[in-house]
Amino acid sequence: MRNFITIEGCEGVGKTYQTRLLKQYCEERGLDVVFTREPGGSDIAEQIRNIILDANNRDMDDLCEAFLYAASRIQHLRDIVKPALEQGKAVICDRYVDSSYVYQGIGRGLGLDKIVKLNEIAVGEYMPEFTVFLDLHPEYAFRRKGGADQNDRMEAVGYDFHRKVYEGYKFLIAQNPSRFEVIDASGTKEQTQAKLRSVLVRRGILK
Amino acid sequence: MRNFITIEGCEGVGKTYQTRLLKQYCEERGLDVVFTREPGGSDIAEQIRNIILDANNRDMDDLCEAFLYAASRIQHLRDIVKPALEQGKAVICDRYVDSSYVYQGIGRGLGLDKIVKLNEIAVGEYMPEFTVFLDLHPEYAFRRKGGADQNDRMEAVGYDFHRKVYEGYKFLIAQNPSRFEVIDASGTKEQTQAKLRSVLVRRGILK
Repeated sequence: MRNFITIEGCEGVGKTYQTRLLKQYCEERGLDVVFTREPGGSDIAEQIRNIILDANNRDMDDLCEAFLYAASRIQHLRDIVKPALEQGKAVICDRYVDSSYVYQGIGRGLGLDKIVKLNEIAVGEYMPEFTVFLDLHPEYAFRRKGGADQNDRMEAVGYDFHRKVYEGYKFLIAQNPSRFEVIDASGTKEQTQAKLRSVLVRRGILK
Repeated sequence: MRNFITIEGCEGVGKTYQTRLLKQYCEERGLDVVFTREPGGSDIAEQIRNIILDANNRDMDDLCEAFLYAASRIQHLRDIVKPALEQGKAVICDRYVDSSYVYQGIGRGLGLDKIVKLNEIAVGEYMPEFTVFLDLHPEYAFRRKGGADQNDRMEAVGYDFHRKVYEGYKFLIAQNPSRFEVIDASGTKEQTQAKLRSVLVRRGILK
């Protein structure tokens, strides 16, 4: 879908920081770009997300969770993304279907095929025009964060999980080379931001 | 799935009454049959259902709703149906995938294909061994209820919707003749109950 861009990457890659910096840059220049992430201020999508995140719901079936993420995605599309695109704005969404593919399909082992099919039904034609992948191997991201922090989410889930997720992204990129813009995120924050902006300029989203 | 039976029918056909009578009959004879309906006492499934039924959520996308029903179905399967089947019990479920097919796929016009695919991913091998369809044209059901009652749910949605749902069921039965046991429900309640029991005896669920 023209003007619909998603940003993906493993945890610790600096995705949130880079997106915030980019948003600030667009605001300063008065560029009409909408930044969002699911559930993104959609009330119904948020109610769905609350069920997923409720610590009392430990017994949730993994596939049930995948369906809830997809349901939340559909409502966020309807409430936030579609209206903005219809107004001619560009929309940059922090995480989208690829996160479900790699975290649930590959990381949790539900099967990539199943999660791809599920999301095809959910989003229909609303696939991103292109997807920026901030590329940093979780081993480096982990080291950059200073290593063993028991309260850290990356540490909590385990390194193996994040390695599987990273390899999952690499597999998706190999399968969909024309959809992905891969940015090396191993340099400084400033270098990564510069690369990100340059991709968005080249693709006609930023001037 | 052996010993997993579902009951379907249009509103006003007496499905709830017939199931209650059957349950009573099984209890009196000490038969180990579990009667359930979604969300069926599964806490997480109920939380999901509450979002669907919340009157404040009028802006819910129809497809989002279909995903939420499927999510609730997956959790109900895991919490209620699978454990009972694993204990060797028969499970009779009041409404299941066919209700989604006809109400959402056909009645709401989301497309039967889409809702079938969605539920294939959701339930996998947990398709009913057979499905009892209580067959009564909504026109008769409507007449039997005494006609125009403005507070009646059937009246509220409109006769056309129910006719579409009925024709949807008939289409499904034509497509899956071996899965459906069609029972004429135009007679007295006692006659319908007798036919229902006789089907369950013939299929080896009741002795």
